[in-house]
Amino acid sequence: MKVLNVVGRRIPMYDAAAKAMGQAQFTDDLERPGMLHGRFVRSTIAHGRILQVDVSRALVLPGVKGVITGRDIPDRVYGIVPKGKDEHALARDKVRYIGDAVAAVVAVDVETAEEAVRLVKVEYEELPAVFDPLDAIQEGAPIVHDNVPNNISASIRKEWGDVEKAFAKSDYVFEDSFFSQAVNHAPIEPHAALAQYDPQNGDLTIWSSTQIPYFLKRNLATTLLIPENKVRVIKPKVGGGFGGKIDMFSKDFCACWFARELLRPVKFVYEREEVFQNTRQRHPMYITVKTGVAKDGKILAQQIKAHADGGAYNSTAPLMITLSCFFIMIPYRIENLLYEGYHVYTNKPTGGAMRGHGIPQARFAIERQLDMIAGRIGVDAAEMRVRNAIQPGEPHPAGFIINTCGFADSVKEAAKAIGWTEKRGKLPFGRGVGIAGASFPSGVANMAHLSSGSVVQLTREGRVNVLSGAADIGQGAETVICQIVAEQLGVPMEDVRITAADTGICPLDAGTFGSGVTVRAGNAALLAANDVRGQLFQFVAERLEANIDDLVAADRRIWVNGSPDRGMSLNDALHAYQYADNPLPIVGRGSWIPPTEQPTSLLTKNGNFSPSYSFMTQAAEVEVDIETGKVRVIKMVTAHDCGQPINPMLVEGQLEGSIMGGMGQALYEDSTCIDGQQYNPSFLDYGFPTAMEMPEMESVHIDTDDPLGPFGAKEAGEGTQLAPAPAIVNAIADAIGLEFHRLPVTPAMILEGLRKKQGKAEGTDSST
Amino acid sequence: MKVLNVVGRRIPMYDAAAKAMGQAQFTDDLERPGMLHGRFVRSTIAHGRILQVDVSRALVLPGVKGVITGRDIPDRVYGIVPKGKDEHALARDKVRYIGDAVAAVVAVDVETAEEAVRLVKVEYEELPAVFDPLDAIQEGAPIVHDNVPNNISASIRKEWGDVEKAFAKSDYVFEDSFFSQAVNHAPIEPHAALAQYDPQNGDLTIWSSTQIPYFLKRNLATTLLIPENKVRVIKPKVGGGFGGKIDMFSKDFCACWFARELLRPVKFVYEREEVFQNTRQRHPMYITVKTGVAKDGKILAQQIKAHADGGAYNSTAPLMITLSCFFIMIPYRIENLLYEGYHVYTNKPTGGAMRGHGIPQARFAIERQLDMIAGRIGVDAAEMRVRNAIQPGEPHPAGFIINTCGFADSVKEAAKAIGWTEKRGKLPFGRGVGIAGASFPSGVANMAHLSSGSVVQLTREGRVNVLSGAADIGQGAETVICQIVAEQLGVPMEDVRITAADTGICPLDAGTFGSGVTVRAGNAALLAANDVRGQLFQFVAERLEANIDDLVAADRRIWVNGSPDRGMSLNDALHAYQYADNPLPIVGRGSWIPPTEQPTSLLTKNGNFSPSYSFMTQAAEVEVDIETGKVRVIKMVTAHDCGQPINPMLVEGQLEGSIMGGMGQALYEDSTCIDGQQYNPSFLDYGFPTAMEMPEMESVHIDTDDPLGPFGAKEAGEGTQLAPAPAIVNAIADAIGLEFHRLPVTPAMILEGLRKKQGKAEGTDSST
Repeated sequence: MKVLNVVGRRIPMYDAAAKAMGQAQFTDDLERPGMLHGRFVRSTIAHGRILQVDVSRALVLPGVKGVITGRDIPDRVYGIVPKGKDEHALARDKVRYIGDAVAAVVAVDVETAEEAVRLVKVEYEELPAVFDPLDAIQEGAPIVHDNVPNNISASIRKEWGDVEKAFAKSDYVFEDSFFSQAVNHAPIEPHAALAQYDPQNGDLTIWSSTQIPYFLKRNLATTLLIPENKVRVIKPKVGGGFGGKIDMFSKDFCACWFARELLRPVKFVYEREEVFQNTRQRHPMYITVKTGVAKDGKILAQQIKAHADGGAYNSTAPLMITLSCFFIMIPYRIENLLYEGYHVYTNKPTGGAMRGHGIPQARFAIERQLDMIAGRIGVDAAEMRVRNAIQPGEPHPAGFIINTCGFADSVKEAAKAIGWTEKRGKLPFGRGVGIAGASFPSGVANMAHLSSGSVVQLTREGRVNVLSGAADIGQGAETVICQIVAEQLGVPMEDVRITAADTGICPLDAGTFGSGVTVRAGNAALLAANDVRGQLFQFVAERLEANIDDLVAADRRIWVNGSPDRGMSLNDALHAYQYADNPLPIVGRGSWIPPTEQPTSLLTKNGNFSPSYSFMTQAAEVEVDIETGKVRVIKMVTAHDCGQPINPMLVEGQLEGSIMGGMGQALYEDSTCIDGQQYNPSFLDYGFPTAMEMPEMESVHIDTDDPLGPFGAKEAGEGTQLAPAPAIVNAIADAIGLEFHRLPVTPAMILEGLRKKQGKAEGTDSST
Repeated sequence: MKVLNVVGRRIPMYDAAAKAMGQAQFTDDLERPGMLHGRFVRSTIAHGRILQVDVSRALVLPGVKGVITGRDIPDRVYGIVPKGKDEHALARDKVRYIGDAVAAVVAVDVETAEEAVRLVKVEYEELPAVFDPLDAIQEGAPIVHDNVPNNISASIRKEWGDVEKAFAKSDYVFEDSFFSQAVNHAPIEPHAALAQYDPQNGDLTIWSSTQIPYFLKRNLATTLLIPENKVRVIKPKVGGGFGGKIDMFSKDFCACWFARELLRPVKFVYEREEVFQNTRQRHPMYITVKTGVAKDGKILAQQIKAHADGGAYNSTAPLMITLSCFFIMIPYRIENLLYEGYHVYTNKPTGGAMRGHGIPQARFAIERQLDMIAGRIGVDAAEMRVRNAIQPGEPHPAGFIINTCGFADSVKEAAKAIGWTEKRGKLPFGRGVGIAGASFPSGVANMAHLSSGSVVQLTREGRVNVLSGAADIGQGAETVICQIVAEQLGVPMEDVRITAADTGICPLDAGTFGSGVTVRAGNAALLAANDVRGQLFQFVAERLEANIDDLVAADRRIWVNGSPDRGMSLNDALHAYQYADNPLPIVGRGSWIPPTEQPTSLLTKNGNFSPSYSFMTQAAEVEVDIETGKVRVIKMVTAHDCGQPINPMLVEGQLEGSIMGGMGQALYEDSTCIDGQQYNPSFLDYGFPTAMEMPEMESVHIDTDDPLGPFGAKEAGEGTQLAPAPAIVNAIADAIGLEFHRLPVTPAMILEGLRKKQGKAEGTDSST
């Protein structure tokens, strides 16, 4: 039994007060002497060739310091995945969606920059546009990128086992189609960048609201044609990322470009409309699922066909469609799977990583179909999930190594907490319960062999300073890392401070994506803290004439295990150390790489993608107002195996955020785009749930202790985003007998469904 | 023969362009959301008891957020030397000089704060005041601090050898008295502080224009009654220190106090008048020198009595008077010395460390008297200095260990360069040459056993990040440290970056004082770089199948010494390292403590004060305008043994600054204080020399290679401040036959002297 003092405690984020008091500095809070402000000229058409950009009137506007177009910058594309790079900071020849950046302006203030934007005249040759992936793959469809003649910029076809044979052996085979909508990350903090250039040594410093400082550094170096070690990326406080701040954006490039050209600091901050239109969104996706099951509900085979609407550019495209494929292999045991997925260009805003990254769409389709199948074959929907659950330690069809897995338990616990047995199918019309399961990796396999490094310093006064490359984007990564270090060094949380995500002074880190931060950066920090512990213990062991391996530390004290009196305070130890010969700074180093199997070839082969996998089941109880069609989520249960939670309060924060996100996806959010034009790019019109809509939330922790996680921790927070939407839609089906296949399920759809149902004579299955 | 690629090169300060472009951030450039601004209510009388402070009208002024007096804060004094602490951030019972801080106000802007200051009413009981140290030590003089009844707050009486016996054996004994005036540091950047408090974890962060972040941290912790590890001191760019930013000031304490009380960032920036009045100045000092010499000019004994005008508080008092004593033992060999020194309180602005710290005053007296003695006994003044010069390696009367010493050579070279033989005593009336010698330690003995630490990180892209506690105050310390690291790692200067003087993330460093930075922090950085080199070389040696000791590095390449083809680029090495197993961050640690003899008892015993000593002779040629009394310095030669200059251009910058400082001391500067009231606390009235007054400057480097310095370096820049003033005044004596004993030598004094001289019949010695 581990005795933990700091890890496992409900500790507020270390920067909570600073944020609450408005003292924490986000990128837009930063001011530099002589700073200029930038804005973009954006395409007003969905598809067209740029014939001419006349910047002459803008250039002479007093206060304007510079205007550039795509022709003024190097012809270098950027993107997350090397082979998927397809985007210029400013469009060169063509615009591909309404909002594509055509020119950038900097001026002494935002107002002047905006006026200058209005003075730039762009002439286009308009081209036919395409707005739906199923249209875009048709012969003769408009071509978004000339080098991708079928608009399919990434695809994957992967088979495990033998699907046709398994279908043949199945008692039932069902095929159903689903659609998942465009959802925006809607971070509270808009995307921003501030850049400054030093002409003396060519150093370019950029403060950017980014999730992956090292990737941004690389993309900037590549597109600006400067060596990577000339770019320093610093991440200030970030007000939410959710995957939407993984990419480099025009604002990053243009801030750097102008800073270097004009020798003045330059800031770009996106308007809310730009966050919706010009950053990223969850890919709208068409998914058809064909599933073969035995009579007892055991899944024998699945065949999935997915078309993701990528919008105008790739962003993470090859990766997204691959993750969507591979992670269907958890949480259920599927021996035979055929996945066929396509990432398709359209003339719309670009899809990218968003909490779950290609998986929420698949999970919605599968979990919805599971429920429908359960109903069709007369098996309990929860029981069916338990029967198909992956078990820890058993060989996995795709080669994943599942050391710990609490999935079956999570289904049972969620069912229990929501009152499944009493309520499922038994509540009055308009009320119902639903359930859905999910799983998520703790970091995806290591692209480009990026280890996470950490450096931990113990100062003379017993202050612990952690350097980490990890990027806290509001989720509490820095707090979690500090807790791990505090635990290992036997000091309270308040003695530990962290400086992170500054490529100028922090060690390498892969960044914040794929839910890998706690395990990856946490392990690196743990190892570095261990190194510090070793240096300190060696000194103390000599003083105490004890064996170094017998020492333990807690509460700012070090002593011989079992002999509490044979010890000394940390303060005394450090004081003595300082007066000893050659008191080297006590600095520990740690590095951690996930022990995954194909670190350099994520996309094609079998292998263990992640050091560990978290598992979760969510159950919802809903009430549908038959008059208005409005759905109220009454309660949401999460039963969660995330290993040892480093900070249960932060895990709950993640759960609650996931539920909000899932409710948005299920019921409210839709980044409506008609003929390429977004219609609701504002917080006023884009309907994410607020505190008013939030249900009662209950969380059940399923204990596991992962051997590879720091103190046994696994992923938390991204996996829990996957199941809420299907759980809610499954509950709606239980409540009113309508099976919805499209998200979001709006009051109009419900009223329409109820009307149809009333009109029908006793239909057994009402699909909408 | 060392081959050096980066060390020894004339490289511009790495932050020169940023400073020139106005992008470098000094404390006052920093802005924080919700920041408040502070101002002080200051005493209008020189000495008095505070009867009442009425802040009621100020408190209700709209925009005022807080007003505090000395009664509102803990009764804790601060100061540099533990036993000399005597200052409150705000006066409690008494005010002790015109300008003493009585209350502090913060408001939403500076204007409101200033208005509030005017609304604070202070009632005093005025006390008799004392303005001269010779008056202050008299029986019955007003007592500045009640616990110091004779106003002597620090004193030292130290004898080496037997002075009386040596006087008796001397061929001649001369006694002369001198006075050295109050000189202000006059840094371009006024003193400033910005503080921010985090109520969640009690962290107090202060950005302060300080020379010693770690001392400021301690003084803040002590006076604010919080643990030291709760205070983080960050030094932004500093626009000149010269010793004047060693102390903590009211602005530091009050910024922190209000930030904690009001939970908002608070900034205090001193007005220029406050820099003059409320920071520090070089101590005015009365010095009587009695010297016994042999006929050949050999100094047999010296007896020195010094009274330093300390003003209202101690600042560095015990230390200053001790340094003034001990460092008379260089550059001349003095077997018998009796030094009696007193630090005396008066009701005036406070004296403190200033470039030379107690030594310029003594050096002025001694070098003036040496010249006068040379004239009196008919020995050449330069030759006399050579005859008395300390020689390297010989036992030193005070126990100093002089490993390298180019002093005798420096006298010869300076004489040669100024044309001594042709000019001394031979130029037309009104023109003359003068010479003076000096020496300075490379850091004074280690108070409180403060080692300098350094951490050097080599990133994956070959960028080198240095963490150092050293405080660059404009002199180029960071550039010098980067050069040392670059040299040791075989990379160009542009690959090295430094983060320094942030107690939150940098290792311990003793700070910037006593000219110890290059040797202390430079050695620490060198050791840390060596550690990095070892980690890297170990990896490369395995790859090359070579012996690690045979490897060398330069120009971003590592190879086997003698076999240039058996090598690899740094970039290739780092790439391979990253893909090797467990690529720990490459981080090196270094720590350096001067091998001095009494590290914890600076003040009383014999011992070696410094790892090394620099030596210098300066020679001046002047022209005195007989009509106006104005002195023009035509040329100034510096012959300088500073070991291996790490950056000759920065050394020259220091020399030139020293000459400007020495000229100011000799001819222009005088922080005039009459009845306790400063009369010229502005750049308009305070007459420091400008570029217009600067002479032709020639620098001769005397080669030595110190065994304890990084790459052989020793102190540069503080020692060279000592000799210019006496050299100039000696040259004036050569030019017009007037021997001045007071500084500064003003046109009025010269005209007066010339008038007296004309009035006299053939006086052999005209003392003024």
